[in-house]
Amino acid sequence: MTELKLYISPGSCSRASHIALAETGLPYTVSRVKFAEGEQRSEAYLKINPKGRVPALVTDKGVLTETVALLAYIAALAPAKALAPLDDPFRFAEMQAFNAYLASTVHVNHAHGRRGARWANEETSIADMKQKVPQTMRDCFALIENGYLTGPYVLGSTYSVADAYLFVMTGWLKEDIGSLDDFPRAKAHYDLIAGRPAVQQVLAEEQAA
Amino acid sequence: MTELKLYISPGSCSRASHIALAETGLPYTVSRVKFAEGEQRSEAYLKINPKGRVPALVTDKGVLTETVALLAYIAALAPAKALAPLDDPFRFAEMQAFNAYLASTVHVNHAHGRRGARWANEETSIADMKQKVPQTMRDCFALIENGYLTGPYVLGSTYSVADAYLFVMTGWLKEDIGSLDDFPRAKAHYDLIAGRPAVQQVLAEEQAA
Ligand SMILES: N[C@@H](CCC(=O)N[C@@H](CS)C(=O)NCC(=O)O)C(=O)O
Ligand SMILES: N[C@@H](CCC(=O)N[C@@H](CS)C(=O)NCC(=O)O)C(=O)O
Repeated sequence: MTELKLYISPGSCSRASHIALAETGLPYTVSRVKFAEGEQRSEAYLKINPKGRVPALVTDKGVLTETVALLAYIAALAPAKALAPLDDPFRFAEMQAFNAYLASTVHVNHAHGRRGARWANEETSIADMKQKVPQTMRDCFALIENGYLTGPYVLGSTYSVADAYLFVMTGWLKEDIGSLDDFPRAKAHYDLIAGRPAVQQVLAEEQAA
Repeated sequence: MTELKLYISPGSCSRASHIALAETGLPYTVSRVKFAEGEQRSEAYLKINPKGRVPALVTDKGVLTETVALLAYIAALAPAKALAPLDDPFRFAEMQAFNAYLASTVHVNHAHGRRGARWANEETSIADMKQKVPQTMRDCFALIENGYLTGPYVLGSTYSVADAYLFVMTGWLKEDIGSLDDFPRAKAHYDLIAGRPAVQQVLAEEQAA
């Protein structure tokens, strides 16, 4: 089997899949895509991921993209680590629904602060999108805080790959609104996940990449 | 077991989960959420789905949301129908990646035409987003046409719930750019899926809802 290789950019959404990989205990390597140099749009990288984004995971069967798909796949690579409720279709769907909400709504809202040019052309529109990010992120985290996150973990008493993903999104919330004080459950969750050895390992690997 | 109940709005992304349900052959009912009356934000509906969106699927274990999660869950309800490669983690991840791309990128791009107020406040910004939709939808479908969609189905030779989802997105592309002539593979896929009895059943059920 080819060693798993994850294409990442430090601090980006690739951090979620990276943490999940670290939690498996399987061997893997990471390769940094240099966003500052526009490497995600280079010919070489577009051959790996034609979407020009991270994460992308190279496996012996082919390349996989999309955080929601990668997290579930990585969990399935190491069933003994129980990183997802793989044998309970309803619980699995709940986890996937949480992750899909992060990908399709929370991540997208945050992206309007930095990547507004994806969806509009005028500087004024891009500035308008940027100013709205704190509000849309707050709205999402109000739902998470008062509904989805029962705690301590996303699925209640057991850790799953959804916790790695929420950890990354909560970090972005903090960047967007300056503090987590209005979201004590999300903050407690963030601190709990930050303390995991796999997370510390990933932060070090991002630095070194 | 409580009968499955899907909350829908005709022509919306709920159509994908609705088609998947029809493909299972299982009994279900649909309930229309009247967008024209803002029913998705009514107190009663927010109790079902606090996000104020469709689809939402009521099951005997609880309510599930998010198209990506629902499609995989619905496939798992009827394993004999082989609506997803449930026993092959890599193929399943490929399907989930395709669906996650539709949810996090294609759906989101389309939504900037009608729901721009989610991400900006000024009329000029909202108009700017709207004018960019044909381009962003074309960019996504260029990737699908020339890469992901090998055909006849999303996964190649076998139908899956990803085909129901792509069918809905291709219908939106047609609304956004006026014709599918520039995307012959997506058009052939659309016509193929439109001919399935489950799709015709769903279109009739939407009309009646
Ligand atoms: N839907 C994808 C989104 C991937 C994505 O947007 N990645 C960002 C980093 S967080 C990226 O690569 N951006 C580079 C660019 O837009 O040029 C996922 O969930 O994996
Ligand atoms: N990420 C969700 C998105 C759901 C969604 O945006 N649904 C739209 C219809 S396509 C909706 O309910 N819109 C109502 C509104 O925005 O008020 C999914 O994939 O299911």
